[in-house]
Amino acid sequence: MSLKYFFNPEAVAIVGASSNQKKIGRQVLNNISQGGFRGRIYPINLQEKKIAGLKAYSDLQKLPRQDFSRLLLIIAIPAQFVLEEIKKCVSLGIKNVVIISAGFKEGGADGKEREKLIVDLAEKNKINILGPNCLGLINVSNNLNASFAASGCKPGRIALLSQSGAVGSAALDWLKTKDFNLAYFISLGNKAVLDESDLLEHLSSDKKIDLIVAYLEEITDGERFMTLVSKIAKRKPVAILKAGTSAAGGTMAKSHTGSLAGSNQAVITGLKRAGAILLNNLEELFNLLFLFQKKAWKNKGKQELHLLTNAGGPAVLTVDSLSQHNLVLGSSLDLLGDADALRYEEALNKLLEDKSVNNVLVLLTPQTVTEPLKTAEVIVAASKKYPAKLIMASFIGGAAVRSARSLLEDNEVPFFEYPEEAIETFKQLALYKVRMKDLKDYLPFSGKKEKEISGNDYLHSLALLKKYNIPTVKTYKYDHKKINNFRFPLVLKAIGPDFLHKTEKKAVVINLENASGLQKAVRVMEKNNQKVFRNPLNYLIVQEQADKFQEIILGFKRDISFGPIMMVGLGGIYAEVFKEVKLEIADLDFKRALLMIQGLKIYPILNGARGLKKYDVKALAKMIVNLAKLANEHPEIKELDINPVFIFEKGASAGDVRIIL
Amino acid sequence: MSLKYFFNPEAVAIVGASSNQKKIGRQVLNNISQGGFRGRIYPINLQEKKIAGLKAYSDLQKLPRQDFSRLLLIIAIPAQFVLEEIKKCVSLGIKNVVIISAGFKEGGADGKEREKLIVDLAEKNKINILGPNCLGLINVSNNLNASFAASGCKPGRIALLSQSGAVGSAALDWLKTKDFNLAYFISLGNKAVLDESDLLEHLSSDKKIDLIVAYLEEITDGERFMTLVSKIAKRKPVAILKAGTSAAGGTMAKSHTGSLAGSNQAVITGLKRAGAILLNNLEELFNLLFLFQKKAWKNKGKQELHLLTNAGGPAVLTVDSLSQHNLVLGSSLDLLGDADALRYEEALNKLLEDKSVNNVLVLLTPQTVTEPLKTAEVIVAASKKYPAKLIMASFIGGAAVRSARSLLEDNEVPFFEYPEEAIETFKQLALYKVRMKDLKDYLPFSGKKEKEISGNDYLHSLALLKKYNIPTVKTYKYDHKKINNFRFPLVLKAIGPDFLHKTEKKAVVINLENASGLQKAVRVMEKNNQKVFRNPLNYLIVQEQADKFQEIILGFKRDISFGPIMMVGLGGIYAEVFKEVKLEIADLDFKRALLMIQGLKIYPILNGARGLKKYDVKALAKMIVNLAKLANEHPEIKELDINPVFIFEKGASAGDVRIIL
Repeated sequence: MSLKYFFNPEAVAIVGASSNQKKIGRQVLNNISQGGFRGRIYPINLQEKKIAGLKAYSDLQKLPRQDFSRLLLIIAIPAQFVLEEIKKCVSLGIKNVVIISAGFKEGGADGKEREKLIVDLAEKNKINILGPNCLGLINVSNNLNASFAASGCKPGRIALLSQSGAVGSAALDWLKTKDFNLAYFISLGNKAVLDESDLLEHLSSDKKIDLIVAYLEEITDGERFMTLVSKIAKRKPVAILKAGTSAAGGTMAKSHTGSLAGSNQAVITGLKRAGAILLNNLEELFNLLFLFQKKAWKNKGKQELHLLTNAGGPAVLTVDSLSQHNLVLGSSLDLLGDADALRYEEALNKLLEDKSVNNVLVLLTPQTVTEPLKTAEVIVAASKKYPAKLIMASFIGGAAVRSARSLLEDNEVPFFEYPEEAIETFKQLALYKVRMKDLKDYLPFSGKKEKEISGNDYLHSLALLKKYNIPTVKTYKYDHKKINNFRFPLVLKAIGPDFLHKTEKKAVVINLENASGLQKAVRVMEKNNQKVFRNPLNYLIVQEQADKFQEIILGFKRDISFGPIMMVGLGGIYAEVFKEVKLEIADLDFKRALLMIQGLKIYPILNGARGLKKYDVKALAKMIVNLAKLANEHPEIKELDINPVFIFEKGASAGDVRIIL
Repeated sequence: MSLKYFFNPEAVAIVGASSNQKKIGRQVLNNISQGGFRGRIYPINLQEKKIAGLKAYSDLQKLPRQDFSRLLLIIAIPAQFVLEEIKKCVSLGIKNVVIISAGFKEGGADGKEREKLIVDLAEKNKINILGPNCLGLINVSNNLNASFAASGCKPGRIALLSQSGAVGSAALDWLKTKDFNLAYFISLGNKAVLDESDLLEHLSSDKKIDLIVAYLEEITDGERFMTLVSKIAKRKPVAILKAGTSAAGGTMAKSHTGSLAGSNQAVITGLKRAGAILLNNLEELFNLLFLFQKKAWKNKGKQELHLLTNAGGPAVLTVDSLSQHNLVLGSSLDLLGDADALRYEEALNKLLEDKSVNNVLVLLTPQTVTEPLKTAEVIVAASKKYPAKLIMASFIGGAAVRSARSLLEDNEVPFFEYPEEAIETFKQLALYKVRMKDLKDYLPFSGKKEKEISGNDYLHSLALLKKYNIPTVKTYKYDHKKINNFRFPLVLKAIGPDFLHKTEKKAVVINLENASGLQKAVRVMEKNNQKVFRNPLNYLIVQEQADKFQEIILGFKRDISFGPIMMVGLGGIYAEVFKEVKLEIADLDFKRALLMIQGLKIYPILNGARGLKKYDVKALAKMIVNLAKLANEHPEIKELDINPVFIFEKGASAGDVRIIL
């Protein structure tokens, strides 16, 4: 579905427009007409003939004949009347609709049903719907403010999407105060038809945009989202503030958005895979917007940060913060407490003349002879002279730096109240620049699905691993007649539905050195589990005991939105304590599997640190790749754990496996 | 030294006062006279007869006769003339001095020498000196602004100390803008004579103060500081922003303060021990000041946080942040997007009527019918009606919430730009309340010092441990004649100055099962190290090999400011990878030693999680206590490591020891 006329309609109609200024429909009408939209505007109201000086129509069907596919319809009437209007869209051929009205999925069973009817109709007739339960949209570049939020933004290069209307309206209010530049504002609401991916797809080809920022409480289709973001992020950053990252927050988000797709871990893993910038809170979101106002963020080359300051203390805090985020300090020059604007000017220009200097943070604290406003003018002039260099400022204080701050903000110099905020924001940019270099397109699995497995019998599960070239420890069903064929030392295990928690059930005996020891262990186990062994799904196996290994855990969990999430980590007794795992999306190759392992804190140990043994991490990486293949070809498997994986100096083997269908 | 007249002088003299408004001495004079100070004011200037309408004196010695011990002298003249004035103080009996002038320790060798001469004179004659290189001090309660920073603060209950003049002046400027209440502002400067502990000692008994906040780049005398803070923090919080926490930041701080006492780890451990609130950055510092403006922070009882909001999104982010900081959400009520001030009022009052509700955060985002200012009035009224309850606000937005914000700030309702900031600040308060409950006074070690040990010979070091009841693994100097007395399995180790890195040197052989195996290993080792063994300090030992244990590391490092810092953590191959250690100050008892161990992530494993073996953590705790005693009684030991400590199901033993004198 093209969104061309959704964002650039030739005409706009507002169902719910009214001469009552308090009505939302009227506020939308005001925003559209006062915003300078150049197309035709049709207020629609059952009773009124004229609204805000415009001819009003009693019904959508009474509008003058035209190409309705190029009209944008805004609906701001009570929820129970909305379906009727959508039906009219079907008959008229209207394809682009914003439903501002609330009272749908977010409001109980009735609302859910109401929304479903609309969605069915829209999908059948290919109607783009934004919302319901949203603020609307603003396309600053063509003066279209089809929202009930006052905009006041100048045309800029940033697109802002928000699933929460409240966060959206707060952001707009905040941006207006900062005299901010914006390209698009889009309030997603319930995402009944259009979701973040649809909008991203449209925005991806918009050359006006430099940055896409979204506040999201859930991502409807993770795989599609990754496909899009991984493509876009190679050219311009996509930054996401994902709310509901805690269990409690997630539950709350679910209750007020009416749905929640994807686990938080999966979302984070998926966004990282796609190369998105992950924001942690609203402050980071707003600060990021500042950084990206000018094209200077695009500078290439050395990403060191250079400091100019008139005070030691704040510089120390800044350097602390740089260290904490593993960023590199370029130069740091203390102009001393009596630095006036001239001293700043000379130092700043000298610094910027150096071609290797790309990023500068100017710190200032108001002291006796400090000239905050003049210093701000110096910075503005330097920013204009060197448009390709990123010059940020942090003037710490209150009244004494207020007008300087306004001047810097008006001139789009990224300004931060505290230097630590500047560093945190700069870190996001630096990280993005590193990541975008080898970002690969996400390709959802499109190969053939293998025949579904029918159960999770232990030996069958091991056989499935082998089929995918995942080596397993030699394992036999216990048979006292074959006892002389076994190679000792051995491990004896009880397997089956009654032995899911092997440690607690004492279902594992290790270090069996010979046949008599094994037989003794078998007798004890049989005696303790007589009843249970009547079920043939419970049985005994023996495995050859591994020697000289490190214990690893490996597995995947399928997310409904992002697909299989691969996991590798530290096994053994410390596994639960340190939760040392790395996650990845299942489109991985050998190189990325290796990166997962190298990202583990225990990697130096696997790699033979301090003259110790070196383990076969390549074999482990191959195992991860093969397991990802298995995960992709067996969508019926919800979860699979290999714990332990033994990694040896040569090779690696699955020691145990658990499958959940 | 009493600071009574330092903060409450009967008269103030300013050396360096001038009719030139640009001179710092003149600015100080203006601040004193315009600030409403009621005592006598003496400008001192060689040439001028009258300054700012006050009679001026050509020299300190020309002042009218009076009790000079009750006079405060401010010095604001070039550094090279300051010593002369201090000499006059000695002859006149002036005891309280602020040196504002810079050009001392912070400025090279000359300045260092200059400062030393002044310090010697001051210490010999018991003269209190603040600075040099500082802004001065403000005692708001008696209208004394003896600084060159404009104050404008109303009398309040907070004392603010800053080692950095720039951070101090930025803070004052910021506080002025917020119409903030303050009790004291003290700029520490170079701390030549008066340091943070001296000032803390004076402030500790001041009932006007509710909170002490300090920005510090180093703590001169850690043990004294802990003694004071641990006493004060039982009654009122002491919050510290310690700059220079990173290696690079520390180096920078050192270069501009001219000194740096104590390692950062030691400082953090010491401040925690003393019950201080640890601040991470300037934003946290300023936010904390807001929280403590009213006495409401003192509320006792349940420390859950209750939420009122008109928007789901920000509430989700708030709950995420609560979870992240392990705080408990009380109730959370969404008043919905169309909540007006009345709805807020009813909900807020209903909430506050509940006696178990102590802490409330009111969230607001400007939406269509939102009434930010009226809602702020509602909150102010509620704060006045319930002065014992902590009511915080976070109104997210720009212009639409600006006047509401001012109203809340003017009425001392803690206001935060973003809800996450509110949560982070509230966390500090909640943590403080938990900690202050069992806070014990820090008592510096005052027992007798034992005879110094003379070297770090391995067997002597083990003997020293034994003397302090720290069990050690049975260890013998290797002697082939005694080979039949040894109990196998054994470990063979080469010991001495040439075997400090045993693993790299292959100086340890384990699993020696019998005499012939041992002899073989000895032969190999002797052959490989023929030269080295000519030095009798290098020799071979054998140790009985432990079985069924967990490996722990234990030790201490002596900090020049905070004394011995005890350390316990995970040993074995994962020690370096996970750096799982807990640190404590050496005044610990058995209970706190146990808390250290329980604070380790691996504690569940030591404590027999999931039906595993349970190890003797009490024996380990005793070992820590005994080692602390050793550390206190042997100040000549700079560092001591026991690695590994074997912890068994019953008992624990030192397996190896390294001492640095």
